[in-house]
Amino acid sequence: MAEADTVGKIITCKAAVCWGAGEPLKVEVVEVDPPKAHEVRIKILYTGICHTDEYTRSGKDAEGAFPVILGHEGGGIVESIGEGVTNVKPVRIIYLHLRRSFWFLEMYWFQGDHVIPLYTAECRECKFCKSGKTNLCGSVRATQGQGLMPDKTSRFTVNGQRVFHFMGTSTFSQYTVVADVSVVAVNPSAALEKVCLLGCGITTAWGSVVKQQGVKGSTVAVFGCGCIGLGVINASVLVGASRIIAVDVNPGKETWAREFGATDFVNPTKLPEGQRIQDYLVEITDGGLDFTFDATGNVDVMRAALEACHKGWGVSTIIGVAAAGKEISTRPFQLVTGRTWRGSAFGGVKGRTEIPGLVEDYLNGKIKVDEYVTHKRTLSTINDGFHDMHDGDCIRCVVDMNL
Amino acid sequence: MAEADTVGKIITCKAAVCWGAGEPLKVEVVEVDPPKAHEVRIKILYTGICHTDEYTRSGKDAEGAFPVILGHEGGGIVESIGEGVTNVKPVRIIYLHLRRSFWFLEMYWFQGDHVIPLYTAECRECKFCKSGKTNLCGSVRATQGQGLMPDKTSRFTVNGQRVFHFMGTSTFSQYTVVADVSVVAVNPSAALEKVCLLGCGITTAWGSVVKQQGVKGSTVAVFGCGCIGLGVINASVLVGASRIIAVDVNPGKETWAREFGATDFVNPTKLPEGQRIQDYLVEITDGGLDFTFDATGNVDVMRAALEACHKGWGVSTIIGVAAAGKEISTRPFQLVTGRTWRGSAFGGVKGRTEIPGLVEDYLNGKIKVDEYVTHKRTLSTINDGFHDMHDGDCIRCVVDMNL
Repeated sequence: MAEADTVGKIITCKAAVCWGAGEPLKVEVVEVDPPKAHEVRIKILYTGICHTDEYTRSGKDAEGAFPVILGHEGGGIVESIGEGVTNVKPVRIIYLHLRRSFWFLEMYWFQGDHVIPLYTAECRECKFCKSGKTNLCGSVRATQGQGLMPDKTSRFTVNGQRVFHFMGTSTFSQYTVVADVSVVAVNPSAALEKVCLLGCGITTAWGSVVKQQGVKGSTVAVFGCGCIGLGVINASVLVGASRIIAVDVNPGKETWAREFGATDFVNPTKLPEGQRIQDYLVEITDGGLDFTFDATGNVDVMRAALEACHKGWGVSTIIGVAAAGKEISTRPFQLVTGRTWRGSAFGGVKGRTEIPGLVEDYLNGKIKVDEYVTHKRTLSTINDGFHDMHDGDCIRCVVDMNL
Repeated sequence: MAEADTVGKIITCKAAVCWGAGEPLKVEVVEVDPPKAHEVRIKILYTGICHTDEYTRSGKDAEGAFPVILGHEGGGIVESIGEGVTNVKPVRIIYLHLRRSFWFLEMYWFQGDHVIPLYTAECRECKFCKSGKTNLCGSVRATQGQGLMPDKTSRFTVNGQRVFHFMGTSTFSQYTVVADVSVVAVNPSAALEKVCLLGCGITTAWGSVVKQQGVKGSTVAVFGCGCIGLGVINASVLVGASRIIAVDVNPGKETWAREFGATDFVNPTKLPEGQRIQDYLVEITDGGLDFTFDATGNVDVMRAALEACHKGWGVSTIIGVAAAGKEISTRPFQLVTGRTWRGSAFGGVKGRTEIPGLVEDYLNGKIKVDEYVTHKRTLSTINDGFHDMHDGDCIRCVVDMNL
């Protein structure tokens, strides 16, 4: 049995590097070190661009470290693995010597596992993983937050300069290295240019809905109809919500929202003068929603989403990431009278355990994925993908990393 | 069968009236109308004094209407009932004519039901009651908030002037009238001078704990060691919390807290300089508490209580009532990383359904009640009871309404 000829060697490839806060990405030649123990090197084929990438690129993320290779919504193939990795398999070549009446040789070439990098690791051994109450794994959190691998070093070099990792994934590189707890193999029948999106947005939305009790038969409102918001709508349809109200200031989102399954669309800028969106929603729903979701990252919208909840039992979930330093507020009476304010990261989904099933759901037509891909770019035009994201007609832009 | 001779008549008795915001209570002669249909007139024997009474008396409650008879933590005996009332029974006298070898007459006198007025009604018919998800009944909410009975009038008159009801209970009167959905009969073996406290504080605390899943075996912190805080401690012991940290700025509360079952006592004013209480608690609990409770009504403490929760699963419950206009705030990241912010009114307890069982628990020694009564006053010295409440050594002051 042999391995790919890159194994154990530095790979020289291309990556989009962000050299400083607010700067556009620059495609550079990058040297990617081999994976160390419990690390996996992945050939990234496709990656989505998410608002969190833009958040760090823009410099709004106070903890952003530069230079950095961003990207956390990728799909790729395992190129090689470090010592002790057992959960994914690399490219491997198997020679079979078969003896019949004469000698002959056959060679089989196995492609590496198709994988999705996970910015929310799942080690299955830490206090968090073992608690059974959260998907927030503590195993690589500290170093991931510093833009480093668990041994506190980087695997990326550009012109001799070390470049930081991002969210433990750095999918804007043709090759990346991740911790073995930060990657999951999925069914190779699923097109990576689609299921790469399960690395963040769609999964986050799906988990935020399906992991809550009681959404079946209940009323739902989702604020913001981007990838997350549409995912919430799709998941609400999936579990059988009775009414799904989509809220967005962009009238162009109404068609999208309804295609994904929204029963109502409300544009907060078109309400009778002075009426707040939460008051309007409470009015048209006889007291408020059973479940609301913020998919905007705007703290004022988060408040509206909470206050649009029904007294006594309404639950509001924050999914969007707010700008640094921003705070949410409300009168405590809102909670004392029975509303619950919660949030979720990566939808509460345990990536290694649950994403393979989500990929099957996609293959079986249970959840939408293809429908989110409105724009396609290549590595060389990745900055255009960031611009696409700001356009109202973009749900997700997928970048082909080979071009 | 005959009734008490007051039935159907105006009763003239004494009550503590608050004539205006910020004024002390004044004991007045009050005329109490008979109960109308679906109303119950109660002879109040004992009442607690709660911070919510003081909140309205002080004028901080923007919705307070004066003149008013305050009080919402009472115990009494049903004097008479209006048409259609079936859930409680009044004083009644039954004449039995028995014939043996000669005529004779026996007369039985039945005391009215021992009852606790409920500021959180339970009609069992409204959308809220039927939801199975909340104890907030909508049946009398609107008029109760206006200080009136459901027919939008008052039953109290002082010197010809109408006086407002309070929280649907007005227990600072020797006789009061409440809606039939706002009263529950309890085991008459229980001393009303004790179980009157189940009308608010103790029940609120009990419900806030026992109605949550998972407190058994978990760590708990309670901020504020007044009646509610001690009740949270008692209930946490009851359900089997593994560690119960009491937090109070008053060092005198430590003895109380430990007597009720706290395993730790932390005084936030005694921390190393600059250390916030939430950071200290996270530090000593290896990441934070599983459950926290605010029993202070202070919005800054509410924030600390949330932020002292463990990442991934901590749940913080707001029980205290904040001053008008005050708002709670935090970074949304606190929720996105798995903390939940909730609240409860009357502990989520359905009064008519659950208080009789709580009284039995008291009689069976399962929950503390006697221990809360640190001060006793009479109707004529009720203002002293309000002063007691501000003293650090007072948990609850119970007022004897007959003296």
